[in-house]
Amino acid sequence: MKAILVIADGMADRPVERLRWKTPLESAHKPSLDCIAKTGVCGIIDPIAPGIPPGSDTATLALLGYDAMKVYSGRGALEALGSGVKVSSGDVTFRCNFATVDKNMIVTDRRAGRIANEDASRLAESLQEVKLEKSLGADFLFKNTIQHRAVLNIHGRGLSTALSDSDPGDIGRKVLKIKPLEDSAEARLTAKIMNRLMDELHRVLQNDPVNKERAKCGLPQANMILCRGAGTVPKIKPISEKYAIRTACVAATPLVRGVCKTAGMDLIDVKGATGTPETDYVAKAKAVVQMLKRYELVLLHVKATDVASHDCNPKLKTEIIERVDGMLSYVLDKVDMNSTCLAMTADHTTSVVTGQHEGDPVPLAITGPYVRRDDVMEYGERTCAKGGLGRLRGIDVMPVLMGQLGKTKQFGA
Amino acid sequence: MKAILVIADGMADRPVERLRWKTPLESAHKPSLDCIAKTGVCGIIDPIAPGIPPGSDTATLALLGYDAMKVYSGRGALEALGSGVKVSSGDVTFRCNFATVDKNMIVTDRRAGRIANEDASRLAESLQEVKLEKSLGADFLFKNTIQHRAVLNIHGRGLSTALSDSDPGDIGRKVLKIKPLEDSAEARLTAKIMNRLMDELHRVLQNDPVNKERAKCGLPQANMILCRGAGTVPKIKPISEKYAIRTACVAATPLVRGVCKTAGMDLIDVKGATGTPETDYVAKAKAVVQMLKRYELVLLHVKATDVASHDCNPKLKTEIIERVDGMLSYVLDKVDMNSTCLAMTADHTTSVVTGQHEGDPVPLAITGPYVRRDDVMEYGERTCAKGGLGRLRGIDVMPVLMGQLGKTKQFGA
Repeated sequence: MKAILVIADGMADRPVERLRWKTPLESAHKPSLDCIAKTGVCGIIDPIAPGIPPGSDTATLALLGYDAMKVYSGRGALEALGSGVKVSSGDVTFRCNFATVDKNMIVTDRRAGRIANEDASRLAESLQEVKLEKSLGADFLFKNTIQHRAVLNIHGRGLSTALSDSDPGDIGRKVLKIKPLEDSAEARLTAKIMNRLMDELHRVLQNDPVNKERAKCGLPQANMILCRGAGTVPKIKPISEKYAIRTACVAATPLVRGVCKTAGMDLIDVKGATGTPETDYVAKAKAVVQMLKRYELVLLHVKATDVASHDCNPKLKTEIIERVDGMLSYVLDKVDMNSTCLAMTADHTTSVVTGQHEGDPVPLAITGPYVRRDDVMEYGERTCAKGGLGRLRGIDVMPVLMGQLGKTKQFGA
Repeated sequence: MKAILVIADGMADRPVERLRWKTPLESAHKPSLDCIAKTGVCGIIDPIAPGIPPGSDTATLALLGYDAMKVYSGRGALEALGSGVKVSSGDVTFRCNFATVDKNMIVTDRRAGRIANEDASRLAESLQEVKLEKSLGADFLFKNTIQHRAVLNIHGRGLSTALSDSDPGDIGRKVLKIKPLEDSAEARLTAKIMNRLMDELHRVLQNDPVNKERAKCGLPQANMILCRGAGTVPKIKPISEKYAIRTACVAATPLVRGVCKTAGMDLIDVKGATGTPETDYVAKAKAVVQMLKRYELVLLHVKATDVASHDCNPKLKTEIIERVDGMLSYVLDKVDMNSTCLAMTADHTTSVVTGQHEGDPVPLAITGPYVRRDDVMEYGERTCAKGGLGRLRGIDVMPVLMGQLGKTKQFGA
């Protein structure tokens, strides 16, 4: 028996007036999702806890069976890992933005005009030439991800994540000095390294040819790096070890890829998978079907549902759900469902009204040959709430799924 | 008000093709079980946690209101207690097998040809003559239970359960020396005691007349004792103290009797109760009715449902459920249900397909004069999931039942 865990990012929602008080899921034409509900056992999930809006990182950790409240240590390290940066235990990682500052280090644009990937890549290359003083005993890796976004990893001995941000959070405010948040030699050292590095990076950016070209075109200078969210990689036991299975992840979003890598999953690259509404849904589905030959558990993550939610676009969200349904139709067609369990869920609710992650539960349906099929006939937030699984936490999903595969260890005799 | 807690071992199941995708419970004719559901409030229970297959020991501990994850320390001590062996706090108890070894101590039969109870009893008597050196400061009690199964209890001061097994687990492998699993004087001492004792027991068994007779009949020699699962008794507060009630248990299985004894319950012996499908169901029901005059809480445990499950026999399991139903019919007839709460559940799911304990939840129905009766009309895994209790954990059942008796203490003012 094999398992597929499908996570549609932020797919769950609240009833919305523009959809006649239905949710996008309830409005969508989604025969495959409904088929999963019909042939499966359904329930609702609090990814973290009732009322608590999860991030995609904490929710995915939970859905993979980890206690996010205990093991989570910031987004930076996970995003860095997912972007291909080598992050070791003990490293300190920040999420960064290319930003524009004036002579007095006042932030005038937190995203340097949403700088294009190409410019950001060229600048990142220059930055990597910077050398830290040997006496600091550390080196760094800076990598841009999408547009103005980037990650910065500090590698060395005796570092600490107890650090404040340099990002003031708003325009019109001065770049902040990074301060130690605890009275330890480690925190003081790491703050010193970071402040030295920030000065150096600023100096290099000011004089970089890319910024000179940008000035000519009237584009904002990407002359500063803002850092926030110092973190490190969670120390967790790989899923493969916990359940003695091989695991793989089909996801485009760096953050989710990072979580999966932390959980010891193999990351599968899929051509055309972009993490946007225009992603190649069928290419992802094909990859899942292919990978299921080599792995016992394949995670399939789609980001597009969340994108439409953050844009407060219920129509687009409904359409994207229909595309997700098409993707699942391919999977259900090609996979032998007599020997496969498929769990369909979302990592969190994102409201098309607020454009924010919300703390409402998410629907879950698990289909497989031996599940206690219930009488839920449609996949949705309210229909699944009536299902045979009742209300569970995110952390319960993996044991329930692995229980169907006979992979959970008996406790007691 | 009084309470009866009925636990049918491994009664819960998954839908199975041979029963037209019903579970054995759903296939059985069970008017009494249905009556309990109809007149009661229903729900589903994760004995330990969602997806985790419980043992009967950990699940029964949980259903009696204990945090099994915290208090459980191996099956051995519980089984010994349930077999009538005196086990004190600080003792170390092993589960044992009579086994057959060759000259080189290679195991050739892990069960000594499933040695008959009578031979095992006579050998156990000889073994009890062995004396440990005084300097070791410990004594032991060895007792055979059923066929090749036995328990061994070491009593003394400064002992430790941090010990490896001597049972190699498979035939064709050499008997293992017991090793300390931690660097402590206690673990080293206990390992030393055990290894000396194992040598002595082997010596006595080799020369025992019972084995000479067995050799003549061509039966495998029961010439070695294999030990595994060093444990001790959980230190828990008796139910009687927690709720200021008198408690009794009607169960035949040593393991369950041991758990009940640990929880401070009086063990009731019932003639004809065997822990097999041929047990005297009505005799057990009569005992419960009788005991309810003297006790506020009586636990009624039936093992047969689990036996049929492990044999992967859905038809037999369905029939046994019907016998359990007959037993309950007697109880419902004879007990004044205007002043009695009856909770009906299983300790875990055992699949007739896999023959294993599984992590799926179990049904629960509680009938009594003041429960919030719901609209569940049949007792089953899927019907109870729609009940008014929702989804609870095993540890919640006892407080819920005691709440109906007015025995739970108010928290706060």
